[in-house]
Amino acid sequence: MDKPVFADIERAAKRIQPHIRHTPVRTSSHVNQKAGCEVFLKCENFQRTGAFKFRGACNAVMSLTDEEASRGVVTHSSGNHAQALSLAAAIRGIPAYVVMPENAPAIKVEAVKGYGASITFCDSTQEAREATAEKVISDTGALFVHPYNNPYIIAGQGTAAMELLDEVPGLDLVLAPVGGGGLISGTALVCKTDRKPVDVIGAEPEMADDAYRSFKAGTLIKPDRVNTVADGLRTSLGDLTIKIICDFVDDIVTVSEESIIRDMRFIWERMNMIIEPSCAVPVSALFDHKIETAGKKIGLIITGGNVDLDHLPWQRKNS
Amino acid sequence: MDKPVFADIERAAKRIQPHIRHTPVRTSSHVNQKAGCEVFLKCENFQRTGAFKFRGACNAVMSLTDEEASRGVVTHSSGNHAQALSLAAAIRGIPAYVVMPENAPAIKVEAVKGYGASITFCDSTQEAREATAEKVISDTGALFVHPYNNPYIIAGQGTAAMELLDEVPGLDLVLAPVGGGGLISGTALVCKTDRKPVDVIGAEPEMADDAYRSFKAGTLIKPDRVNTVADGLRTSLGDLTIKIICDFVDDIVTVSEESIIRDMRFIWERMNMIIEPSCAVPVSALFDHKIETAGKKIGLIITGGNVDLDHLPWQRKNS
Repeated sequence: MDKPVFADIERAAKRIQPHIRHTPVRTSSHVNQKAGCEVFLKCENFQRTGAFKFRGACNAVMSLTDEEASRGVVTHSSGNHAQALSLAAAIRGIPAYVVMPENAPAIKVEAVKGYGASITFCDSTQEAREATAEKVISDTGALFVHPYNNPYIIAGQGTAAMELLDEVPGLDLVLAPVGGGGLISGTALVCKTDRKPVDVIGAEPEMADDAYRSFKAGTLIKPDRVNTVADGLRTSLGDLTIKIICDFVDDIVTVSEESIIRDMRFIWERMNMIIEPSCAVPVSALFDHKIETAGKKIGLIITGGNVDLDHLPWQRKNS
Repeated sequence: MDKPVFADIERAAKRIQPHIRHTPVRTSSHVNQKAGCEVFLKCENFQRTGAFKFRGACNAVMSLTDEEASRGVVTHSSGNHAQALSLAAAIRGIPAYVVMPENAPAIKVEAVKGYGASITFCDSTQEAREATAEKVISDTGALFVHPYNNPYIIAGQGTAAMELLDEVPGLDLVLAPVGGGGLISGTALVCKTDRKPVDVIGAEPEMADDAYRSFKAGTLIKPDRVNTVADGLRTSLGDLTIKIICDFVDDIVTVSEESIIRDMRFIWERMNMIIEPSCAVPVSALFDHKIETAGKKIGLIITGGNVDLDHLPWQRKNS
């Protein structure tokens, strides 16, 4: 499989169905009021391992031949993909090797350990992650499963939007955050396949706006060193995700760090659910009116809820 | 209506149906593993106003005659009933007067204001609340709606268990926290009406164990001054709730403050949802094996999620 298509997402949905959780779609009058439209939140923070990433990882692991699988899987990740791959590997009964940046939140490290994976720590740069993963691969013979620039991963992530469109007919627009682009790519493939296409807009932190700049330029622009509270979005696009984004995504908008922290707290307080800073990025796009919302029905993919409760962003000054 | 019966809960369910949210039932492999059984969490932290209390308040307000309603409603509450009554009154378009203890969490005070109610503050003792409410009643002519010792409130609260039993057939046991006893009374009326009765056990903090002692004595024992982190459970039983509890509840167990804080955090981290300390009380009863759980299917009512995010119990030392 090279570039995934809609049929790959349908196959992924069948393949992962016995293992994933069909997550709820929630609404909130407080959110609707602030956004000025009807918003439907697909709660992947209630997915197994606490994030949508389990969909893609599960699809990738369950797609391996027995011979491939027996060698185990490797990845580098800021955390959620690592947990997801570790659980998927544990379900299939194969080894998982995880390269994580040293500044990954403690709870994510503990969770990966809890699923029985072997961890190798490295610097937090993209380069250090890739180099360390290379070394693990040559040491173990395991297969590398990229967190997003992989067609099976993209197809798996698209199943969240597929469930959302099935459950909420008549959506005008689906919003998702953009990190490496796996989720928005899978989402766009789903939204543009139906006979009546649904708009797809990506949201990104201003402090990590490589996808925004790449989308506007029509070509992959590598980020400068990024520094956003939305730790899940610090990664840059890949050659596969940039292509899908340029072909199928309608727009990418950016939001400030201040808004991300404010709206993360808003969702915690008003919807009583824990979302990561990354999830607040599309919420801020709505609340800061970066998108035309009036009269629309908007779907929003809440990507995950794995947060270090000892280091909440609105309490940074005390930590 | 004096002592409510099952038919009152059926009527309440119909009456409040257009206004309440049908909340999801969630499961977690982490919770099941720790409890040693199958646990089904009825998520009233996702109810409107963030707590089950809206069910009872809505039933009470919608049951008033037009003449009664026009005078408005009054209550004293540590917070959740106050929000619930304020929203119910706002929906019916009548005034709400709320007496709140001065140490009520800021977010609860703000929410009550947000629903348009008038607030009068008082000391945090039961006596001060009652005296202040009396004064408001004589000043305004509004009707007092007790937070729990009221048959319409009890009937409304019972609708949560009714939904839970409908959605999860074959439950062996339903667990709920006990504060004033409104929720456990309504829950017991539902669980003991069916042809195949379901066990009902209440959970209470050791530091506010008046219901435990009253249940064992078979008569109302007023608490000493209570001091538990579970602020929603600081109230004592009423003459109506003690009767129903003695008639229909199978047991009441108590748990430590340490366990409450530990298990509140466990649910936040493992289920990515925000629960109040009160909700963790029955969770602790499971995790500390205060109840025989092996092989059972247990329903657990998660009562609310209104927490002051600037004062989390595991961060008390910093605040």
